[in-house]
Amino acid sequence: MKMLLGSGELRAMARGCAILGAGGGGDPHLGLLQVLQASADYGPVPLVDLDELPDDSLIMPCGGIGAPTVSIEKIENRDEGGRLPYYLEGATGRTVSALMCSEIGGANGLLPVCWAAQMGLPVLDGDGMGRAFPEVPMVAMHLAGISPSPAVMTDERGNVMVFRTITGDWMERLERAAAVEFGGSASATEYTLSVAQARAGAIVPNTVSLAIRVGRAVAEAEGGSPVDALLAEVGGYRLISGKISDVERRTTSGFVRGSVLVEGLGDDAGRLARLELQNENLIALERGRVLASVPDLICVLDSETADAIVTERVRYGQRVTVIAFACDPIWRTDKGIATVGPRAFGYDFDYQPVEDLAGAAT
Amino acid sequence: MKMLLGSGELRAMARGCAILGAGGGGDPHLGLLQVLQASADYGPVPLVDLDELPDDSLIMPCGGIGAPTVSIEKIENRDEGGRLPYYLEGATGRTVSALMCSEIGGANGLLPVCWAAQMGLPVLDGDGMGRAFPEVPMVAMHLAGISPSPAVMTDERGNVMVFRTITGDWMERLERAAAVEFGGSASATEYTLSVAQARAGAIVPNTVSLAIRVGRAVAEAEGGSPVDALLAEVGGYRLISGKISDVERRTTSGFVRGSVLVEGLGDDAGRLARLELQNENLIALERGRVLASVPDLICVLDSETADAIVTERVRYGQRVTVIAFACDPIWRTDKGIATVGPRAFGYDFDYQPVEDLAGAAT
Repeated sequence: MKMLLGSGELRAMARGCAILGAGGGGDPHLGLLQVLQASADYGPVPLVDLDELPDDSLIMPCGGIGAPTVSIEKIENRDEGGRLPYYLEGATGRTVSALMCSEIGGANGLLPVCWAAQMGLPVLDGDGMGRAFPEVPMVAMHLAGISPSPAVMTDERGNVMVFRTITGDWMERLERAAAVEFGGSASATEYTLSVAQARAGAIVPNTVSLAIRVGRAVAEAEGGSPVDALLAEVGGYRLISGKISDVERRTTSGFVRGSVLVEGLGDDAGRLARLELQNENLIALERGRVLASVPDLICVLDSETADAIVTERVRYGQRVTVIAFACDPIWRTDKGIATVGPRAFGYDFDYQPVEDLAGAAT
Repeated sequence: MKMLLGSGELRAMARGCAILGAGGGGDPHLGLLQVLQASADYGPVPLVDLDELPDDSLIMPCGGIGAPTVSIEKIENRDEGGRLPYYLEGATGRTVSALMCSEIGGANGLLPVCWAAQMGLPVLDGDGMGRAFPEVPMVAMHLAGISPSPAVMTDERGNVMVFRTITGDWMERLERAAAVEFGGSASATEYTLSVAQARAGAIVPNTVSLAIRVGRAVAEAEGGSPVDALLAEVGGYRLISGKISDVERRTTSGFVRGSVLVEGLGDDAGRLARLELQNENLIALERGRVLASVPDLICVLDSETADAIVTERVRYGQRVTVIAFACDPIWRTDKGIATVGPRAFGYDFDYQPVEDLAGAAT
């Protein structure tokens, strides 16, 4: 066991998950309340490494699916977590030995810990993305050729669906349609893999530890600026500091989509940056120039505290600093770019790493 | 075994299924081509009675789900039939001993015969409705308190979903949403029941024989009018004879909805009747007066041949006779009316049996 996830770790993790969510993954404030309660009820969850788990057992990647704007009002009832492994084990005939976050970003980094507490299972130190992405096949397991099937989806009412689809894109279509029927959000597991497959490189390792470390760097920024402490911790770039001057946000087809305008203040006075989003912040633009884009992470931070402001909480007048930092290297491979680069979201430009864009800008 | 479903029986059955479909259930012409081919490839399917099947084995009710307007262009690839019992047996741990039509109406009366041929299973003489209805829980099994779960749904590409929902209405919502994603139609089984439950009255018995008998009555109307022969066979009422003067039909949310105007000719000159439909013909109106309504069957027939014209084939100028006849008595119970009466489809009037309405009109 690497560590027990006590309330101190969970609070730091929530802060880190918000930042790693790049605006998405759901509001970690709600996730934190849920996981603190589960932890108090069932005891703290062990965080484990791959070498502590039996080779042929299953890792269950899981989390919420849908529009974060919905999930802040329509919360889980906590039974979802038990149904997912029950039906997954039924469909595979194998045993789940640990839960893993499908995405470490946002509340989706915390929800699996909540479920693990209830089930008495450990959580693996790793996830499927190293951040949050909006669509089901946008996971490391997809790049590694792992099947999305069987997947299990459930809602807070007790409905359950087991999916076996021919591709990850079909899983996305069918799960999204069901999430819409469920009211805009639900709970799901897909891309289940064996411990042996995970060891062979099919996940993004050590991202729970990363979230905790990032959260602590912000919380413990002594005397200086929490934003600077965060930039140092993640190796990030400040894109603009200013205030939110416009938000356009619509919840549609199981996603939240829209854009956010940031008007520069102080040193950035006169500048105007625009973020476009689909659950997560996808691209940052200024006068037609790309400041940063997926798969790199773009975060809207409270300028004072460096707390990340998730997509569904961004509003007019907030004083924010927008930062960007490098994604996990797996997303910068050809298959990674094809899966989650700008063109995968319909943008007609090629991906450039944030460090190159930042270098060109100065 | 009651009989072997040879090509003669299947041709009569297709004609009868079209009539029992009340406009819906899909075009039986395509169903007939499929089942004749399957019958030639694998041999004729035995039609069996409940007392020929083991008590604890399962009956799998099955058919297509979606909009008939779609299913005439997007046909099955025939592998669907094998996947349904495979995953149903996996989900229940029990053996399927016979297939049953979820609805005897339209192509959905023939599709299970096609699948049964391929699987070497018999077809039960009975179905879930004694006609066709548009929504999943509109089956005798629902009235008998049988669970809709587990249900299995698949498409022609090979995607499979297993559903366990808390109610039949949730099954309808989730299956419909998936059918829409699949392009508007798919194949499914739900409300699986044991032979013992079927014997206790949870199905509408002898409806395959009924379809064959009805089809033969029309085909063999010697010297007289096929419409009159049909009316005599089913105990039906002629609502209006005339021509189709307008069709409004839209495929939306996995259904076809719309209305059909019939302008009287001959003895009916000067009359104008309107049918409203959701996959099936739901109500027939004349100057605000209800001529017939669900759950009784309303059929649009070719005035010369008495062949039923399914919803998706009705078009301007056709010379038609609209008839209505009594549904199976289970639909005239309180729970039956609540499930499939006019109010279940959003109409603000109470159900009156077609024989009472016809009596009042003369």
